[in-house]
Amino acid sequence: MKRVAFLLLAVATVAGVIGSVARASGSADESAPIFVTKIPPGYRDWRLISVAHEAGNLNDIRAILGNDPAIKAYREGMLPFPDGTIIARIAWSYAPSEENNKIFGRAQSFVPGPAPDWYLQFMVKDSKKYAATGGWRYAQFDKDGKPADETMLKTCFPCHEPVKARDFVFTHYAP
Amino acid sequence: MKRVAFLLLAVATVAGVIGSVARASGSADESAPIFVTKIPPGYRDWRLISVAHEAGNLNDIRAILGNDPAIKAYREGMLPFPDGTIIARIAWSYAPSEENNKIFGRAQSFVPGPAPDWYLQFMVKDSKKYAATGGWRYAQFDKDGKPADETMLKTCFPCHEPVKARDFVFTHYAP
Repeated sequence: MKRVAFLLLAVATVAGVIGSVARASGSADESAPIFVTKIPPGYRDWRLISVAHEAGNLNDIRAILGNDPAIKAYREGMLPFPDGTIIARIAWSYAPSEENNKIFGRAQSFVPGPAPDWYLQFMVKDSKKYAATGGWRYAQFDKDGKPADETMLKTCFPCHEPVKARDFVFTHYAP
Repeated sequence: MKRVAFLLLAVATVAGVIGSVARASGSADESAPIFVTKIPPGYRDWRLISVAHEAGNLNDIRAILGNDPAIKAYREGMLPFPDGTIIARIAWSYAPSEENNKIFGRAQSFVPGPAPDWYLQFMVKDSKKYAATGGWRYAQFDKDGKPADETMLKTCFPCHEPVKARDFVFTHYAP
């Protein structure tokens, strides 16, 4: 069940594990584990790539944000993404807005509700270091900052393989 | 029909008309019309406030972004919003992702499609100048930058009045 949920999570978005954000600035740390536990600082201030609603078991609404190299690459149509790219995905449960619907007298608005277990995901690009997983490192964290276990994270790359032609990234830029 | 659509647009979000962004920096221009035609520069680089899906006739998926005063006010729980606040709402048609659904074998992902006529909306705060409309000026633009007509824009404030207690802003911050 967890595995299925995680596979679905990757749809339309991205997933990733981060060891150290410092790594993105070029420092080599060959001893870093593939799946790590550090949330990239400042990700909530990053610019918007796109939004999505994932139906089915996930039933979430989500925003996909990118750091500066990510946004630049998207806007310039640059593929593959450059090393240092980080893509963040924030998911909230897909909740009807009771206060809006009361005002408008119909089931009109769906808005972010409480954070699901798959609240945060990241993809971090380092084409050499993570060549075995398409050049990306994957991460997932819940609302308390607890990382997903490695069994789940090992499903990220196989799920992203069908979009190899887009450098393993599902999300398109929303203009 | 247009009027109904516009009323609905305001749900879960915000709407607004901008005369001059310079105005937000404090310059007084009493001759500026209430509903104007200038899109705030750089809004696509602003930070994320929240996301939403509007069902019914709108059937869109949207992102709500804020300039720096907007984000600061939201994060600090500051009400009313300070003068200079601008809230932007980008809407895209709510489209099934055929490429994702093909990969996953089910109707899984809903993503941004083509821009609807109500592509962009803005609310600009100036408590003194726009006191007659709750301190906000409203705007709407289509994907070609064409502003909505005044008849439509005059429906913005009445629609926002039910959320006067939140300074006429529907959208909550998504953490």
